[in-house]
Amino acid sequence: MNVIVDRRSRHYRTVAFDAAQNAVLLIDQRLLPHHFEVIATRSVEDTAMAIREMVVRGAGAIGATAAYGLAQGARAFRGADPGRFKRHIKAVFQMLKAARPTAVDPVNAMNAVCAAMNSGETVEEQQALALAAAEEFANDDVEHCEAIGKHGAKLIRNGMNILTHCNAGWLAFVDIGTATAPMYAAQAKGRRFHVFCDETRPRSQGATLTAWELAQQGISHEIIADNAAGHLMQRGRIDLVIVGSDRTLGRTGEVTNKIGTYTKAVVARRHGVPFYVAVPFSTIDWNLKSGSDIPIEERDGREVLGAWGLTARGRREFVRVANPTSQAYNPGFDVTPPELVTGIITPEGIFKPKELWANRRKLGY
Amino acid sequence: MNVIVDRRSRHYRTVAFDAAQNAVLLIDQRLLPHHFEVIATRSVEDTAMAIREMVVRGAGAIGATAAYGLAQGARAFRGADPGRFKRHIKAVFQMLKAARPTAVDPVNAMNAVCAAMNSGETVEEQQALALAAAEEFANDDVEHCEAIGKHGAKLIRNGMNILTHCNAGWLAFVDIGTATAPMYAAQAKGRRFHVFCDETRPRSQGATLTAWELAQQGISHEIIADNAAGHLMQRGRIDLVIVGSDRTLGRTGEVTNKIGTYTKAVVARRHGVPFYVAVPFSTIDWNLKSGSDIPIEERDGREVLGAWGLTARGRREFVRVANPTSQAYNPGFDVTPPELVTGIITPEGIFKPKELWANRRKLGY
Repeated sequence: MNVIVDRRSRHYRTVAFDAAQNAVLLIDQRLLPHHFEVIATRSVEDTAMAIREMVVRGAGAIGATAAYGLAQGARAFRGADPGRFKRHIKAVFQMLKAARPTAVDPVNAMNAVCAAMNSGETVEEQQALALAAAEEFANDDVEHCEAIGKHGAKLIRNGMNILTHCNAGWLAFVDIGTATAPMYAAQAKGRRFHVFCDETRPRSQGATLTAWELAQQGISHEIIADNAAGHLMQRGRIDLVIVGSDRTLGRTGEVTNKIGTYTKAVVARRHGVPFYVAVPFSTIDWNLKSGSDIPIEERDGREVLGAWGLTARGRREFVRVANPTSQAYNPGFDVTPPELVTGIITPEGIFKPKELWANRRKLGY
Repeated sequence: MNVIVDRRSRHYRTVAFDAAQNAVLLIDQRLLPHHFEVIATRSVEDTAMAIREMVVRGAGAIGATAAYGLAQGARAFRGADPGRFKRHIKAVFQMLKAARPTAVDPVNAMNAVCAAMNSGETVEEQQALALAAAEEFANDDVEHCEAIGKHGAKLIRNGMNILTHCNAGWLAFVDIGTATAPMYAAQAKGRRFHVFCDETRPRSQGATLTAWELAQQGISHEIIADNAAGHLMQRGRIDLVIVGSDRTLGRTGEVTNKIGTYTKAVVARRHGVPFYVAVPFSTIDWNLKSGSDIPIEERDGREVLGAWGLTARGRREFVRVANPTSQAYNPGFDVTPPELVTGIITPEGIFKPKELWANRRKLGY
């Protein structure tokens, strides 16, 4: 991979494509918040490696990366034999899919690119259609996030204090993000508000990614320990909660999101604080019938036993915090029941969780 | 200070006294869980420094340290002039009090030592009385914790999963601890159970001190992110919560404890999980009329922005986790209202929070 070191002095997408160099451009999220670097992957092998090594993470972002990767692979093909080209595309598809085997977004994104290519006849035509379809997928992701922002911005009034958990910002999508989209849209309207970012242990995506994003955007914010959110709600210092979701059930309105989300929802309900979940179409699961069917990923306990950060000498290191002879239990996600969710902010408007199913045609099912 | 490096192969008190050397013996809590060392402070100046530098922390532990420090100072006096001795004692008292000016336990403990000394006439008699009173203070602390254990052990049945938050273990007292006392007593009765320790960000006392204590005691336990406790309760995997308290209001039953306690109490109530608070007499505040009168200490935000731990090369270092241009808001404590507390475990038995006032004579007021 080639590295372009740059500061965020201009607008970047998390995922973009450089057609002249046939390269996918990715903000390297492994280095944030301490270093901002854009990586250019100049081959499909490099793009697959970037997905595998979590240079890029987040549903929308890895979907777009896979779509661009497929177009990149198509454009790298030399020759005019449609049969050989087809076999080449199949291999590229498999390589990109295997880079994050449990994710559904890359597969959906690449299926869209393949469908578009089918309407071309020559290799050259199909190459052009692949790139156009990848660009369309990325632009749609941005448009959906913009629409979430437009609907969600209505919830944000001047002087509000907003809580968010984990990172459902533009780093998790092509741009704008979901939980952050209403904030950016409200900011564009000149509204002033303050955001409390849960640090979101054990991986600290709130302290690292969300705080970094909000700082880049010039939005007033403070990081809090996950333990502090309940106290702030009790003292009337949080007016609104907006989080993202990894999977929201269309049939029941149950919301899967980063571990700790459920706890905030319970305390928010006790204090009458509105609790909203922002989701693009791709996050709604129309198949599962119950939240208890959602598998909760149990992650490596070492994440809980210490922390990654920068030492005083500027080295990125892991420090072991916990007692060396103790182990940790580390569930990655939890499920919030619909009765604790005030509304689901979608690109098509805000719905009660139980209303998703009745609106399923509108919402892309 | 002289350092005795040792392993916990025999029984230690957190605070003890070596009469032959006129030294206070303290487990150095700054080094736990990565190193176990007992420090011997051989002068009052060293004892005061140990309190100031948090070699020792926790209400009961610093109370006993100050009591022993006063006896140590009395015994270091050379001469037989009662007037000079009295002035010397006054100076020692002030020095130890100034080491942790906001704490009330050292002052109460030293007042008890001074009262005992008053019944002696010669300097020599008073020196002996001082040490006896300090030993009595420490033994009372242990006895109160033992009594908490005896009452609380009834709550623990075989096969239970217990959640605790922060450290209210024997490291915070002379021995045994408060929240941990029922666990140690149940273990002594042969009961088998499992403890989930909240890591307790930002200072991680659960991951460091409580996990270390439980490992020393051979109690089955796992550390969890503070975010995970709600999910575990939702899945029915926690049967009982026991925490300590920094200040419990005798008039209202409101419980001040480490930040995050309130959140666990709210989720515990939602799932019908019994929520108990273990407190010695000294933790009950009979004066304050409302929890909203309790000042919530706002601590340095840097605690939230990173973590202390051991690097791969075994160096103890602070790493900055959070975005470098963001700040943190860091309240140290929160207040849990009495309706969320199933019972207060005291040395005199278990009371409903609202029953404390009616039982105030029994409880030492």
